[in-house]
Amino acid sequence: MTDVAIVVHGGAGEWPADAHDAARAGMEAAVEAGHAILAAGGDALAAVEAAVVVLEDDPIFNAGRGAALDERGGVLLDASLMRGADRAAGSVAALRGIRNPVRAARAVMEDGRHLMLVGESASLFARTAGLETAPESWFRTEARRRAFENGDSSRGGTVGAVARDARGGLAAATSTGGSARKHPGRVGDSPLVAAGTWADDATAAVSCTGDGEAIIRTALAHEVDALMRHAGLPLAEACEVALAGLALRPGTGGLIAVCADDVAAPFTTPAMPRAWRLGHGPTLTAVGRDG
Amino acid sequence: MTDVAIVVHGGAGEWPADAHDAARAGMEAAVEAGHAILAAGGDALAAVEAAVVVLEDDPIFNAGRGAALDERGGVLLDASLMRGADRAAGSVAALRGIRNPVRAARAVMEDGRHLMLVGESASLFARTAGLETAPESWFRTEARRRAFENGDSSRGGTVGAVARDARGGLAAATSTGGSARKHPGRVGDSPLVAAGTWADDATAAVSCTGDGEAIIRTALAHEVDALMRHAGLPLAEACEVALAGLALRPGTGGLIAVCADDVAAPFTTPAMPRAWRLGHGPTLTAVGRDG
Repeated sequence: MTDVAIVVHGGAGEWPADAHDAARAGMEAAVEAGHAILAAGGDALAAVEAAVVVLEDDPIFNAGRGAALDERGGVLLDASLMRGADRAAGSVAALRGIRNPVRAARAVMEDGRHLMLVGESASLFARTAGLETAPESWFRTEARRRAFENGDSSRGGTVGAVARDARGGLAAATSTGGSARKHPGRVGDSPLVAAGTWADDATAAVSCTGDGEAIIRTALAHEVDALMRHAGLPLAEACEVALAGLALRPGTGGLIAVCADDVAAPFTTPAMPRAWRLGHGPTLTAVGRDG
Repeated sequence: MTDVAIVVHGGAGEWPADAHDAARAGMEAAVEAGHAILAAGGDALAAVEAAVVVLEDDPIFNAGRGAALDERGGVLLDASLMRGADRAAGSVAALRGIRNPVRAARAVMEDGRHLMLVGESASLFARTAGLETAPESWFRTEARRRAFENGDSSRGGTVGAVARDARGGLAAATSTGGSARKHPGRVGDSPLVAAGTWADDATAAVSCTGDGEAIIRTALAHEVDALMRHAGLPLAEACEVALAGLALRPGTGGLIAVCADDVAAPFTTPAMPRAWRLGHGPTLTAVGRDG
């Protein structure tokens, strides 16, 4: 038996001081949801899915409810998840009207026919799979409408979770509404295995956030795996080197990662809400560089 | 000045003997189109784009005209390309009605706002960019209609090109109609940077083909880069080790790759049409294991 572990993030970027309390509360709730599953003997994949569902439902984050609006003022959602034991993975992009995109990614994975579905066909698949739908009005919060009307095109608020279960199994999940005022067909790193999400029990489970296009060009999540596997770096160093690579693309961002005996949550932006719980320890949260 | 090089593939899979001549002819035409650009001092990105355009227009391959039909009998196209100098990249998936998907990927890259566009929005972007359109009837060949009616769900026929230009610049491009009878929202490895396509002048340019979902779970194209960069393997060995990794997912396939001083085209399927031209040498073609 291994000590269980879970880490969540709420998106690398600028987080104004008046949003810190809400971000911490959301992070803590997500960690508790995931930890409850791990503590009951559940697997890492179920834990990261449950944690991300909490964050998708929390309107402060840019995922599920409260997602950033695209250039037409619409909501299109992306998510992916991956299991480290066998690298099974599921992904959806440009998904519309499904309350919890991470559940749609899980449904794609469980269906097993394909790994990634996009657009209207992905939405139809998710509805057919019996996933809960929600009207556009449920996703579009007043804060996002104001930001859209003010021309705000900031990024950030993507959510993710990584976990290690009692059998040493790892998993990662990532979910986002994408960059604000994006082209409605735009796909960033979050739903892309190797870019935004990766998990392999032999190395690490990783969920990324930040400048999506630069993260894709860095293959950021898989680069952490590669640095551990091929260069022999420990987790924390692999994450730092991978983020230094992101800076060259150029881009800023952050990631959370877990391996057999460590966790990491580095970022190169001013802030990245994050929380973690290791074994029977307390849930710890932080937003900026100094906590 | 470096010796220029170009390699193309026509998809790892089963290639019946009666299709070998047509496959070789298509491969040769694509190499000539790309080589002409390289010989005139053009860059590697232009060369791989031109080579893939030839293959998209050739109905024998599963890309552009002659693409495999999805489960509804429709045609949805995926492509990506990447430049090694700066890792600039462009990608489209679930594209409809654009004659040359690789040109759409190039247009996304040149536009620069995003890296990947999917679905109807990608098609609209490509039309707005002035790319040539084509009716569904242009893509749907008689051979594909027969295969669809016979319930054929084989994979294969994806196309790709990698090149090195006279300044040592590398580039890769990949294009496909996806797996036959796919879910219409399915995205495989071809349009995914890190999975089906990768290029970095410091390591290699790579285009993959084969079992798409397994290639995604291997991050196959980026794994070749990682094995060269972090494990110090030469190109040919990096390609072999990466393909051995694909087998574990489990999957079969192949890839073509070029670095500063070598090329490679390994595959684990019965055949993979391929052709290459190095420097001022002749164009060489092969289909199966023995040529």
